[in-house]
Amino acid sequence: MSYPNNIKKEYNKYTTFGKRGMDLEYLINEANEYYIHEDIALIYKKPTPIGIKNTDYTNGTIKGFFKEKSTLDYNGIYKGYYIDFDAKETNSKTSFPLSNIHEHQLKHINGVIRHGGFSFLIISINEEYYLLSGEKLLQFIKDNNRKSIPYNFIKDSGIKIDLTIKPVLDYIKAVDILIKERIK
Amino acid sequence: MSYPNNIKKEYNKYTTFGKRGMDLEYLINEANEYYIHEDIALIYKKPTPIGIKNTDYTNGTIKGFFKEKSTLDYNGIYKGYYIDFDAKETNSKTSFPLSNIHEHQLKHINGVIRHGGFSFLIISINEEYYLLSGEKLLQFIKDNNRKSIPYNFIKDSGIKIDLTIKPVLDYIKAVDILIKERIK
Repeated sequence: MSYPNNIKKEYNKYTTFGKRGMDLEYLINEANEYYIHEDIALIYKKPTPIGIKNTDYTNGTIKGFFKEKSTLDYNGIYKGYYIDFDAKETNSKTSFPLSNIHEHQLKHINGVIRHGGFSFLIISINEEYYLLSGEKLLQFIKDNNRKSIPYNFIKDSGIKIDLTIKPVLDYIKAVDILIKERIK
Repeated sequence: MSYPNNIKKEYNKYTTFGKRGMDLEYLINEANEYYIHEDIALIYKKPTPIGIKNTDYTNGTIKGFFKEKSTLDYNGIYKGYYIDFDAKETNSKTSFPLSNIHEHQLKHINGVIRHGGFSFLIISINEEYYLLSGEKLLQFIKDNNRKSIPYNFIKDSGIKIDLTIKPVLDYIKAVDILIKERIK
């Protein structure tokens, strides 16, 4: 029996607790908690979808399996705008593999933009963090027949997120730039 | 060992498949699928949050337990607006019990409105369907020291959703009225 890569990743996420420290998901959750607490934005990570096989009343547990996501991991509201994004980490120093993003997720990104919201990726590459807008991501895929996005493209077309203290990954400042770019 | 009411409800939802027919959640999911297909709105139900106890690689399953939600069930984007709501059914013919809504959910509704989004309940009562805006819900709670909202208040202050054919519960028309009311 074999599972798709993203399902395997979900398993790993729950089993390798050692990695929990300062990974991208941790940083984004920390930022979101800060934004909620300071009433700056309301952005949450969606729960991982689980298919339920059965429930056990005797000990209050369920049995199930990980299901594939059709949307992105995070969504919410900021300054009246609908925000919808995913966090992606890559160990490659030269490029971000597009196999990390599924076809239905690209369709979703496109839909969010068409309906007037902001959709993007937060990419961790070379120990740097970038917000890459859905518009630029989709344009890159349209223009290039490539299996990955070169680091230089992300550096040039993305909005760099510098690490600060509180929150460490203050990505909402990059969203501000994104909003300004669209409105001007 | 005992569980909070809402957790019990989650169990029941997954175990009483017979009830699946035309319940409110089914109707809203059907409407959302229609809106996505027709590119009218992008609104999804959030997965039920599951706490993971362990994962079993040999058969691809997980063991876990239902967790409590801190937000509402549905969110997404419509006409550029952030939409965030919950679906509530009651068997009472005279009132909607406020025990159905948790304190942190009321706080969330208030937050969504403050940030410029639209938050509301879709209430099924007396075989009728109403959209009750977060504003009116919060005002009622503020003005009244009651444990339930009378049916007459829902009838007078809510926006009635008449059943149609495709989708059956075309609730987005009630959202249109909500948007118009705020903008005028």
